[in-house]
Amino acid sequence: MEKSYECPNDKSKDVSLKELRDRLAEFAEVRGWEKYHSPRNLLLALVGEVGELSEIFQWKGEVAKGLPNWSADDKEHLEDELSDVLLYLVQLADVCGLDLGRAALSKILKNARKYPVVVNQKTKSGYN
Amino acid sequence: MEKSYECPNDKSKDVSLKELRDRLAEFAEVRGWEKYHSPRNLLLALVGEVGELSEIFQWKGEVAKGLPNWSADDKEHLEDELSDVLLYLVQLADVCGLDLGRAALSKILKNARKYPVVVNQKTKSGYN
Amino acid sequence: MEKSYECPNDKSKDVSLKELRDRLAEFAEVRGWEKYHSPRNLLLALVGEVGELSEIFQWKGEVAKGLPNWSADDKEHLEDELSDVLLYLVQLADVCGLDLGRAALSKILKNARKYPVVVNQKTKSGYN
Amino acid sequence: MEKSYECPNDKSKDVSLKELRDRLAEFAEVRGWEKYHSPRNLLLALVGEVGELSEIFQWKGEVAKGLPNWSADDKEHLEDELSDVLLYLVQLADVCGLDLGRAALSKILKNARKYPVVVNQKTKSGYN
Repeated sequence: MEKSYECPNDKSKDVSLKELRDRLAEFAEVRGWEKYHSPRNLLLALVGEVGELSEIFQWKGEVAKGLPNWSADDKEHLEDELSDVLLYLVQLADVCGLDLGRAALSKILKNARKYPVVVNQKTKSGYN
Repeated sequence: MEKSYECPNDKSKDVSLKELRDRLAEFAEVRGWEKYHSPRNLLLALVGEVGELSEIFQWKGEVAKGLPNWSADDKEHLEDELSDVLLYLVQLADVCGLDLGRAALSKILKNARKYPVVVNQKTKSGYN
Repeated sequence: MEKSYECPNDKSKDVSLKELRDRLAEFAEVRGWEKYHSPRNLLLALVGEVGELSEIFQWKGEVAKGLPNWSADDKEHLEDELSDVLLYLVQLADVCGLDLGRAALSKILKNARKYPVVVNQKTKSGYN
Repeated sequence: MEKSYECPNDKSKDVSLKELRDRLAEFAEVRGWEKYHSPRNLLLALVGEVGELSEIFQWKGEVAKGLPNWSADDKEHLEDELSDVLLYLVQLADVCGLDLGRAALSKILKNARKYPVVVNQKTKSGYN
């Protein structure tokens, strides 16, 4: 039986990728949806959600950081579409047997080595 | 100055979305990249990474769960591309001022209400 | 005033990219939509349509050529989504001032040089 | 044997979707690539090319129509990526047994019915 979810309105909540992975695995299991969750099915579902995410931004021209002037409804719609992309990404990594959180930290390290910080004393104060 | 990262090889590590968000914000800040991180720039970067993720799967036909017969290198390549999608998604949510982890939990709850568990006693034993 | 369109049911009709470009330019012009058709707006609209195209295939597992067992309605839905991708692609090229048809022929030539035909007398008869 | 292609530099050339379809079918046939061209493989290849197209635009902020200040090389790169999307789209329609040109004309007609031209005598002169 599906466990009851704790309220996600706790602002201090720090959601982990493993928590999402486990909840989604249970969600699919109790609905008998695991048979649909092949890697390429999940990948195409992810692409579908990226499309829905793009539709939110498609006719807006450039959008400022923080989304000034967006309504609460528009922000919630965006949260839903960002989440849908994340949820399929977590499930895709899971059915591939990969640890997404650990992979993400490793990728940040690789990126840090690929793009070392360049200290420019002229334009950035405090670096000496 | 960029903080040193702890080793991501700790298998018990449970990576949170806020940890990724904070590391990526610092990563961009120390490199002076924040000026490039408008919502639509990050969205298009995300689409670019979804393209690279799709390229991994494009000529393979159906792929089995767990990726049997994939080499360690191919799995690492996939981990990198999954991570790139995640990292841009986290940054997109961040510059929009949205809490991705909380949004994802809320979306799972919405999905649970939208797709209630149907218990079929004939085909699923153990549900009474 | 918008010109009347000839019936597209003429099976012998060979539709050109310039015809599509001109019809779409007129379509946008008479509706006052040109102001929305910046390159990045059209690109994100294209990504949105690629998402809808992917949704058609997402839960199907591998799909056979020719779409056996697909209903006429499902095929028409697919035709609509393929078309939506094409129509935004044509418009994106147009607002960028590029000739998509000529570019596509050039790309086929580039690909032909990049991937020369390898004649294998053992496995392909008729090549001597 | 592959037919020689006529020079695509003829500026008056009006390229049709059937011409592209036929050239691509021959291109795949003489290289023995048809076995890779299942619908979902081609769809994922298309998504990959949409990713490469997006990468061109990702860090640019808003881009003006006509691409002022873009170099000839950057424009050719964009032509190549637009073409790659088109070529996979044409092949995807082909292996699905669908007539993309006819479908596109039908979709324009559907769109014309869905979005009738609204004549506003106050702001648009000449419409009575």
